[in-house]
Amino acid sequence: MYDISAVRRDFPILSRQVNGKPLVYLDNGASAQKPQVVIDAMTRAYSMEYANVHRGLHYLSNLATEKYEAVRGTVARFLNAPHEDEIIFTTGTTEAINLVSYAWAAPRLEPGDEIVLSVMEHHANIVPWHFLRERQGVVLKWVEVDANGDLDPQAVIDAIGPRTRLVAVTQMSNVLGTVVDVAAICAGARAKGVPVLVDGSQAAVHMPVDLSALGCDFYAVTGHKLYGPSGSGAIWISRARQAEMRPFLGGGDMIREVTRDTVTWADPPMKFEAGTPGIVQQIGFGVALDYLMALGMENVAAHERQLRDYARDRLAGLNWLTVQGNSAGKGAIFSFTLQGGAHAHDVSTILDKRGVAVRAGTHCAMPLMAHMGVGATCRASFGLYNTLEEVDALVSALDLCHELFA
Amino acid sequence: MYDISAVRRDFPILSRQVNGKPLVYLDNGASAQKPQVVIDAMTRAYSMEYANVHRGLHYLSNLATEKYEAVRGTVARFLNAPHEDEIIFTTGTTEAINLVSYAWAAPRLEPGDEIVLSVMEHHANIVPWHFLRERQGVVLKWVEVDANGDLDPQAVIDAIGPRTRLVAVTQMSNVLGTVVDVAAICAGARAKGVPVLVDGSQAAVHMPVDLSALGCDFYAVTGHKLYGPSGSGAIWISRARQAEMRPFLGGGDMIREVTRDTVTWADPPMKFEAGTPGIVQQIGFGVALDYLMALGMENVAAHERQLRDYARDRLAGLNWLTVQGNSAGKGAIFSFTLQGGAHAHDVSTILDKRGVAVRAGTHCAMPLMAHMGVGATCRASFGLYNTLEEVDALVSALDLCHELFA
Repeated sequence: MYDISAVRRDFPILSRQVNGKPLVYLDNGASAQKPQVVIDAMTRAYSMEYANVHRGLHYLSNLATEKYEAVRGTVARFLNAPHEDEIIFTTGTTEAINLVSYAWAAPRLEPGDEIVLSVMEHHANIVPWHFLRERQGVVLKWVEVDANGDLDPQAVIDAIGPRTRLVAVTQMSNVLGTVVDVAAICAGARAKGVPVLVDGSQAAVHMPVDLSALGCDFYAVTGHKLYGPSGSGAIWISRARQAEMRPFLGGGDMIREVTRDTVTWADPPMKFEAGTPGIVQQIGFGVALDYLMALGMENVAAHERQLRDYARDRLAGLNWLTVQGNSAGKGAIFSFTLQGGAHAHDVSTILDKRGVAVRAGTHCAMPLMAHMGVGATCRASFGLYNTLEEVDALVSALDLCHELFA
Repeated sequence: MYDISAVRRDFPILSRQVNGKPLVYLDNGASAQKPQVVIDAMTRAYSMEYANVHRGLHYLSNLATEKYEAVRGTVARFLNAPHEDEIIFTTGTTEAINLVSYAWAAPRLEPGDEIVLSVMEHHANIVPWHFLRERQGVVLKWVEVDANGDLDPQAVIDAIGPRTRLVAVTQMSNVLGTVVDVAAICAGARAKGVPVLVDGSQAAVHMPVDLSALGCDFYAVTGHKLYGPSGSGAIWISRARQAEMRPFLGGGDMIREVTRDTVTWADPPMKFEAGTPGIVQQIGFGVALDYLMALGMENVAAHERQLRDYARDRLAGLNWLTVQGNSAGKGAIFSFTLQGGAHAHDVSTILDKRGVAVRAGTHCAMPLMAHMGVGATCRASFGLYNTLEEVDALVSALDLCHELFA
């Protein structure tokens, strides 16, 4: 039983007002709010249990190390990863995908080698590959989405040619909400011997993820979207791919021995984690994942399906509003434009006056925006604490926009 | 007037006990504790003022962006940097030096080009250059320190040859406490047309830094050593060097436009900051720097000189203990070994039983350890909240070690 009132009480910021109205926070696609348990865990860590981790032998260092390292197991449980040592801590998906690009792809890919991407990737899953295009002649192959925003897994598989070295694809579009059948893509790519990187930034927030069944090689998540602290995150990399990677960031912790003339590396996952990590953020990230697992990701997903269905119906009733993306199984993410030329930025400003926080712009997905033929959209993205009443508040504020701009 | 009792009350963790004894925290070289104002700022940010930054147009996003971006100015003031847009946010010095290595050095340096380093650099200022040695044939040229642990600036300048492309040097050794005359090195390097990167991880914590006078090209600091949150930090890079850099991490925020076939970059400093940053950590970092500026770095430095002098005298009185590094103007960092073969790890464990937290090991400085001919040391590193009584507590606990191992 999902008690939405109890859930909302867990998030202190939800009780605040904005512009004299109760906050209706629908910018979860950009970043989620934090439950009190996460905030408290960080406060406790800094107030009573703080020290640098690893190699310290004193009480506080051991305590901090224990709490920090335990998060690796928490992430593994959350994603049902086969092995805990396949979890590498990062500051988020951007660093994670750059890690794969610099440490796995850059030393392996030759000019003319291809990376297959969908057109609805986030810039975090585009720009690191553009680096390889610019710097070493790698070719980016783009797979289209259809008018509903659906991505045909077979189209991705068909795009894999003899020069394809990697498929990099999101499991849930941050703009359209489309859920991608990543398992099918992985099965097809595996049959062709091509690794798959999955950007789980959005999907892992909204649905259960089972890496033991998914069949990918790399899976990245971002802590701050998962109701955890800013600057936290992780990537799961299979042992087989880790073994093919050189280090990325150099510094303390990731070495075994440094001399003037030589350097050798620590075993994974430490090999890929340099310097003092985001100690307290990652501890908070672990608490956030525990919070999600206690709620149950199936329950979160069911709650958000209800929000999606209701929002879809209500927005469909506004005949002056166009929603981009209408995939049947999409997540509760709605990008939209108002007919008649009201700019997304102006719309979001008016919504804000009613306390409704949405994002406006290109959502770090410019190739998708070009594909859809829109310059900028507003995006209302729901999370586990949103309510049907907040859908009504959004629609009511949109009605006001329509009046003002009509 | 430096009121040490008032200062100590600002740090909640200092009132706790460890192993039944009052905590004597002397592991500041690894990471510093946080004042309540920093913890409170993060709690407030997460509880009432959180959203993702940049491009959001709603109230919370604007508020978070304003607070986050204001930290750039705070860092610039703290370091007396010429321009605020020369401050690039990082997760700490490790990421900062990797940024310089990947974005400035890697595309410029040819096989046989040289980087001049001191032998007492931290691994964070060694391993990124080893990457260039391994991957593209760059030569590392090492400058020795003398028996006191002093580094002769002229020796560094003399090591600069026609193939030298960079000098990378710490301003304060994290093992010996040695303060390096970086201004002299910069003047000499500048005369030879060679840029200088300064690792300010330790120095900026213990003494005033004036980048407008120093003459370097890159200056990196780490937030968690500066009494700020884990995962915070910044690097100052002169506009001239920024103009020579390609991007490092690819993703959102650092682009101007992304298409399927092209990508263009945002202006610095955003060009070098990809994805959602460490929003709340950096806000906390700014508060930590404000706290330091309110105390006054001259006052902090004077307090720590007193600690250094007293600790130096007391440790000199232990004729069974060897301190590594005895530079006259050193910071309050003492690495030491006990004569008679007691391992540093065992010593630190016994100190811990008395509540005294020190670090034991090679302190991410293996080339220095080899140069000094020691395998591992204990390190007591002082901070702005330490007291003369804590020096006594350290010495008393060391006496116990001596008894046990004699």
